[in-house]
Amino acid sequence: MKKKTGFVEELKKEILSKKSNICVGLDSDIDKIPQSAREKNTKDTLFGFNKKIIDATADITVAYKLNLAFYYSLGTEGYEAAIKTNKYIKEKYPNIKILADVKKSEMLRSAELVAKEMFEVFKFDAFTQTPWFGYDTIKPFLSYANNAVFVICHDSNPSAGDLQDVKLANGDFLYEHVTKLVTKWNSSGNILIEAPLTYPEILKKIVKIGEEDEFYLLAGLGAQGGNINTLKIFNKSNFLVSASRSIIFASSGNDFEEKARKVVLGYIKSIEKLNLKP
Amino acid sequence: MKKKTGFVEELKKEILSKKSNICVGLDSDIDKIPQSAREKNTKDTLFGFNKKIIDATADITVAYKLNLAFYYSLGTEGYEAAIKTNKYIKEKYPNIKILADVKKSEMLRSAELVAKEMFEVFKFDAFTQTPWFGYDTIKPFLSYANNAVFVICHDSNPSAGDLQDVKLANGDFLYEHVTKLVTKWNSSGNILIEAPLTYPEILKKIVKIGEEDEFYLLAGLGAQGGNINTLKIFNKSNFLVSASRSIIFASSGNDFEEKARKVVLGYIKSIEKLNLKP
Repeated sequence: MKKKTGFVEELKKEILSKKSNICVGLDSDIDKIPQSAREKNTKDTLFGFNKKIIDATADITVAYKLNLAFYYSLGTEGYEAAIKTNKYIKEKYPNIKILADVKKSEMLRSAELVAKEMFEVFKFDAFTQTPWFGYDTIKPFLSYANNAVFVICHDSNPSAGDLQDVKLANGDFLYEHVTKLVTKWNSSGNILIEAPLTYPEILKKIVKIGEEDEFYLLAGLGAQGGNINTLKIFNKSNFLVSASRSIIFASSGNDFEEKARKVVLGYIKSIEKLNLKP
Repeated sequence: MKKKTGFVEELKKEILSKKSNICVGLDSDIDKIPQSAREKNTKDTLFGFNKKIIDATADITVAYKLNLAFYYSLGTEGYEAAIKTNKYIKEKYPNIKILADVKKSEMLRSAELVAKEMFEVFKFDAFTQTPWFGYDTIKPFLSYANNAVFVICHDSNPSAGDLQDVKLANGDFLYEHVTKLVTKWNSSGNILIEAPLTYPEILKKIVKIGEEDEFYLLAGLGAQGGNINTLKIFNKSNFLVSASRSIIFASSGNDFEEKARKVVLGYIKSIEKLNLKP
């Protein structure tokens, strides 16, 4: 049995109370933001759009996730828009967790600095990490009991299998080896698993390896082709499921908030039908 | 035979002309910057320190490498200090290449945004990437002929082997599989290999897989324990070798520029003794 951490316990409470496992991905592509949400500068446009999506979905959403590529690529204005978005969520909706999709891995002193950037500068609660460099990149985060790291055991992208599906000498696939490592590394309860909704058979194997009290971030719902019925692999509600474009860009018109909310409600309804245990 | 790219060709010319393979890592830890280089704010301190190191080493250095963890973690000031550092190098020493140590991997639209951040916002010439997500994260960069991506086939950190040394069903180690993939992916001549000086036997195997016209970034010299004599594995000068702390923090006194230069000159002298072909 792993330690219980602030991050997972609080998130589970929120899932139970809102009857929602939805994580809305604020991959707010500046080129796709509807005309009606545009402001005089990039920072205000990005933050303004995010704020509208957040306000339209916060009561039915348990986490937001920012892919930082959409912010870092816009220079200081993008950087500041991400910080402002997180500050807004923390102040107005303090029970909602904020994740960075950043696929970052650093070790030793640089890992301390990643923690500083993620948890102090941006005020994220958690971020995604690749397992490529091993335990050195995980160990520094064991002590952040109120934060979490999601290790990408298998990703949802088409070429994920180039490495992740390689067969090992001991008979395992590489993603199985990694999942076993992550469950071993997770002595603290805050080193969690990211797995793909786009590869149901692989997801099934990963969930089989995960321990009873494991918690998952599931990627690839919506635009990437992941199907919500795949969630019947789970018999309880110990996961976040994330979608981005299918929610935030559900409409390019001035009804984008309303449409975003409708998509989230649709996902929730579909999950409800699976009758998972809380 | 791969295409010749601006990045590799120009770098090789610079190596030949300066008789130096040294890449100075500007891992400018704000807590370690000598008192004599401190300015009134973080941005000026970081940039001022970098400028002094750059001016003291530019005639004997062919590349600078910024680990962005040391900049991102300081908020907007750190972000702007990195941009200012790169601008300074590009203007004053246009033949010197600038690398981002950032271990970033993104795919599709997000990969385009990483290119925008790295090559346009920061003006880096190249950046480091993990192979974890496969070809999707490489393909978008094939068309950036004047830029490069260094794929970390095996890293220099102690736990690198947790994944990278796993034995595959076909008898290869995972790092060999990855090195083979990278040489296959590199149809454009700008998808290059990062390998560790701290694991000589592994480096030897990677270099054996690399094609005749391969180009390498070697990590782990100096503070991490890599030995410069390991470079005798190479019979020609087709590599950058990177050191950070051992150069930029060679002295904590006000002679840090002079001491940094001395360390670089020492490395160059040791490499000279190996009598590599140009």
